[in-house]
Amino acid sequence: MKKSKTKSDLRIIPLGGLGEVGRNMMLLEHKRKILIIDMGLAFPEEDMLGVDYFIPDTSYLEKKEKDILGVIITHGHYDHLGAIPYLIKKLGNPRIFASELTQAIILRRQGEFPDVPKLKTTQVKNGSSISLGPFKIEFFRQNHNIPDNLGLFIKSPVGNIVHTSDFKFDSHPVYDPPTDFNKLRTIGQKGVLLLMSDSTRAEKKGHSLSEKQIMGNLEEVFKKTSGRIIAATFSSLINRIHQIITLSKKYQRKVAIEGYSMKTNVKIARRLGYLKFTKGILIETKKVKDYPDSKITILCTGSQGEEEAALVRITNKDHKIIKIKKGDTVILSSSAIPGNEKVIQNLKDNILRQGAKIFHYQMMDIHAGGHAKQEELKQMIKIMRPRFFIPIHGQYSMLLEHARLAKSTGVPEKNVIVAENGQIIKVTPNKISVSGKEVPSSYVMVDGLGVGDVREIVLRDRKILSKDGMFVIIVAINHQTGKVKGSPDIMSRGFVYLRESKGLLAQTRKKVVEIVNKTAGAQRPINMVHLRNSIRNKIGKFLFTKTQRRPMVLPVIIKV
Amino acid sequence: MKKSKTKSDLRIIPLGGLGEVGRNMMLLEHKRKILIIDMGLAFPEEDMLGVDYFIPDTSYLEKKEKDILGVIITHGHYDHLGAIPYLIKKLGNPRIFASELTQAIILRRQGEFPDVPKLKTTQVKNGSSISLGPFKIEFFRQNHNIPDNLGLFIKSPVGNIVHTSDFKFDSHPVYDPPTDFNKLRTIGQKGVLLLMSDSTRAEKKGHSLSEKQIMGNLEEVFKKTSGRIIAATFSSLINRIHQIITLSKKYQRKVAIEGYSMKTNVKIARRLGYLKFTKGILIETKKVKDYPDSKITILCTGSQGEEEAALVRITNKDHKIIKIKKGDTVILSSSAIPGNEKVIQNLKDNILRQGAKIFHYQMMDIHAGGHAKQEELKQMIKIMRPRFFIPIHGQYSMLLEHARLAKSTGVPEKNVIVAENGQIIKVTPNKISVSGKEVPSSYVMVDGLGVGDVREIVLRDRKILSKDGMFVIIVAINHQTGKVKGSPDIMSRGFVYLRESKGLLAQTRKKVVEIVNKTAGAQRPINMVHLRNSIRNKIGKFLFTKTQRRPMVLPVIIKV
Repeated sequence: MKKSKTKSDLRIIPLGGLGEVGRNMMLLEHKRKILIIDMGLAFPEEDMLGVDYFIPDTSYLEKKEKDILGVIITHGHYDHLGAIPYLIKKLGNPRIFASELTQAIILRRQGEFPDVPKLKTTQVKNGSSISLGPFKIEFFRQNHNIPDNLGLFIKSPVGNIVHTSDFKFDSHPVYDPPTDFNKLRTIGQKGVLLLMSDSTRAEKKGHSLSEKQIMGNLEEVFKKTSGRIIAATFSSLINRIHQIITLSKKYQRKVAIEGYSMKTNVKIARRLGYLKFTKGILIETKKVKDYPDSKITILCTGSQGEEEAALVRITNKDHKIIKIKKGDTVILSSSAIPGNEKVIQNLKDNILRQGAKIFHYQMMDIHAGGHAKQEELKQMIKIMRPRFFIPIHGQYSMLLEHARLAKSTGVPEKNVIVAENGQIIKVTPNKISVSGKEVPSSYVMVDGLGVGDVREIVLRDRKILSKDGMFVIIVAINHQTGKVKGSPDIMSRGFVYLRESKGLLAQTRKKVVEIVNKTAGAQRPINMVHLRNSIRNKIGKFLFTKTQRRPMVLPVIIKV
Repeated sequence: MKKSKTKSDLRIIPLGGLGEVGRNMMLLEHKRKILIIDMGLAFPEEDMLGVDYFIPDTSYLEKKEKDILGVIITHGHYDHLGAIPYLIKKLGNPRIFASELTQAIILRRQGEFPDVPKLKTTQVKNGSSISLGPFKIEFFRQNHNIPDNLGLFIKSPVGNIVHTSDFKFDSHPVYDPPTDFNKLRTIGQKGVLLLMSDSTRAEKKGHSLSEKQIMGNLEEVFKKTSGRIIAATFSSLINRIHQIITLSKKYQRKVAIEGYSMKTNVKIARRLGYLKFTKGILIETKKVKDYPDSKITILCTGSQGEEEAALVRITNKDHKIIKIKKGDTVILSSSAIPGNEKVIQNLKDNILRQGAKIFHYQMMDIHAGGHAKQEELKQMIKIMRPRFFIPIHGQYSMLLEHARLAKSTGVPEKNVIVAENGQIIKVTPNKISVSGKEVPSSYVMVDGLGVGDVREIVLRDRKILSKDGMFVIIVAINHQTGKVKGSPDIMSRGFVYLRESKGLLAQTRKKVVEIVNKTAGAQRPINMVHLRNSIRNKIGKFLFTKTQRRPMVLPVIIKV
């Protein structure tokens, strides 16, 4: 009896996005049938050297391919869809459900991965619904900073579930319809057993800015600027891009777009009607010089100081056509992603040094995050009046704060679950609880073509190499006498400036000869493992004494 | 004539601290005689892999040892004194002038460098003055977040100069006397030709918080906390440390101090009377368990998430005695240094996961920076009414903003100089200008015992190694036939997970044999440079095709 009862619980299993920002992926499982919501990537933490992204660990889904009902992607941001190319094949290429714009972004990205199978995508939209196994999913519009973002109203065997997607409330958005509170209230009135809501800005007091306010502030900049405007933002911030193009039009400026991802996103969004402008407003970058400065906007990527992005290349004078000049006005319309602050500060300084003006979000409200702040979050909870509440999407401190907000609106403490990736949350009509068991939820690292092959040991080695470099010692020994033949060779990188370290290298060579002759000269047969360890340890210590650095010492012994 | 006139200008030469935060060092030169103000270090930028600090480039001072009049250290922070052990010997061990506490901190640090000569320090204080060559320097008290901080009023042959040191105005400091506006006004009334003022917070509107407000807020936390209090701050924030110890006493808590630098700073400051408390309040950490939780404060380093600091070890369960437990309250009383935000977020999450509460500066004003904000900066300029103004100490954007503030108070645009490290600013009684020439002002990197030996090429290698690791190929060739002997050896670290890459390694070995046999097999004599390059390029490309990674490929060819 107990077993079958457990099986008819609904199980909610977050594989990513809880306790972190990014890499969102969640499973809803009922009687073995699994619905997947989102499949995102996250950008590497500081200690993930050389890693491109990390994605969810899907080992729990191995051999369950036939039980996967489908994948719903809530909106077109990479932290919700970026892992598809790496995971979809492994999961048996299940169907993907997404809105028009989201679908287009998924398919565009898939084009960069020629080896993966053709995706099976199905378009859904605000008001439409689909049935997948025991779940019926109705989609409803949510404001965010990309259009065509969908929240989910899921009828499940245990009760109704609301998944907010990323969202903010905006009564005066630009180009997007305003939040449909009537619709939300209708959903709330149907009775919500469980609400799962976006926690990204749960630690921020108040209400997020309306896009209308942003537009007004951006217009102020356009109004008083007579030189070129260089506006940098995320390529995924379709709304902000829309505002900048519209203002450029109003102030008779042509727009040159720089940055591959920005160009392709603009193309897609325009084709689908999410960006509305006449094509004549766009010009090629090489035509910029044909217009007076007052008639030019350069719209580009790089607001986070990303090494290869357009604004950074322009600022570093690495861009073929555009250089910063006196009289330029640079708009940085995105807030700093935590950890990027110093890089952005240096970018700003370099722009200012070249005589341009800067407007950024700390000086003026020219950027609004796409996520609800505390007042909106409480409003969402009050509208939905859920029995159970799980804060999703955010660092642990954000989830905790969101949980506190839920309790403050009256959700009983025992009905609020602060869960983390890999935990199994069991939901019945009367009870929510965290199972003692967990599913794997490790960091799966993507580095080039390798998915998951960068393990702890690889990262540990990269860390050692990054700090003090490496020191390879090649020594030939006579296999009969165990004595060194010739002089040992040393190959070192990232350790010391070799040209000025000849003395150190000579001493080290001498030391190697001593170690080998003493160690191997006395052994019959020569214990190569012991000899190698001996060189590694003794030379490691020697170099540390001389330099206080610990390069990776790698002895190569060749018997001749 | 022209030459001698130039020589009697006063030359101001910043070697560090302008266009960056940290590494403060400035020269005042008149008729070859040089006064040095501060000698600080800075913490490495993101791309300075493995570097401990960076310090000013003093090549300009080479062979000018006998012209150095002395070094004034304004206060006891490492960004003002940390480079002394690395530079003082090179500069001929000139005399150092500092306040009592600053002197003690300089000497304590010097103790960690046994190989440098004994310092020649002279104690100065508020109201005292010294004459050094053409300069007469009067010291005046300035509030900051460390006691015994001195501003400089310098009588020079061209006119009076004020150097503010780092400062903020505080009418209600805790333990420090309040800002002496009368004294400042007296200085202003003497006539100030040039003001050089701290720009660190020039981009922040308003007035900095008084330490009294901080104290009140901290007391709120103490009042309502019944578990242990774990308070983390910088070891150099003597004022904050004082507040926490005093509050602990008031609320009958014993204080255990964790972190070497915190312990030694507390010891010094107490010995000199800058920290006032009865010794009985301190306990050893191993005694913590002998008291109820409500009677314990743990005062520690690690508020920035520094890898080896006490709070981080406690949080990661690496600390021998203290572990975070439910009921603990952690106070993070320092703002995030730009770039550390993500690490601090992860630290917070890990503390919260273990059931502790957190108070940090974003939630409550329990930390005030030590630097004046815009209103204070303007007030300082108004008091000094300088003819010329140079913003010092800060990133370029801060200097620029400070310059704008100066202009807003009435300093004419042509009299405000936004200078950067290495520039030479010439001052006469009637004119301030930047010379066309510059002195060297590069980053001198300190890595272990090496000062300046980590060059661009070493950093570039570390960067490559940190991203994709390295790949050493050892191949023996017959020196007569040029053919490979045996199978090539491969040693790789930080590139791929070797256990799962046997196929790739086998293919690479085969490829190496092909390359060598084809290249060297046809050459007489064998061109070793060409052969090595050929292996490096071809194997590099091969590995990139297979993995999209670019490890550093290092071929070792052994002729047998």
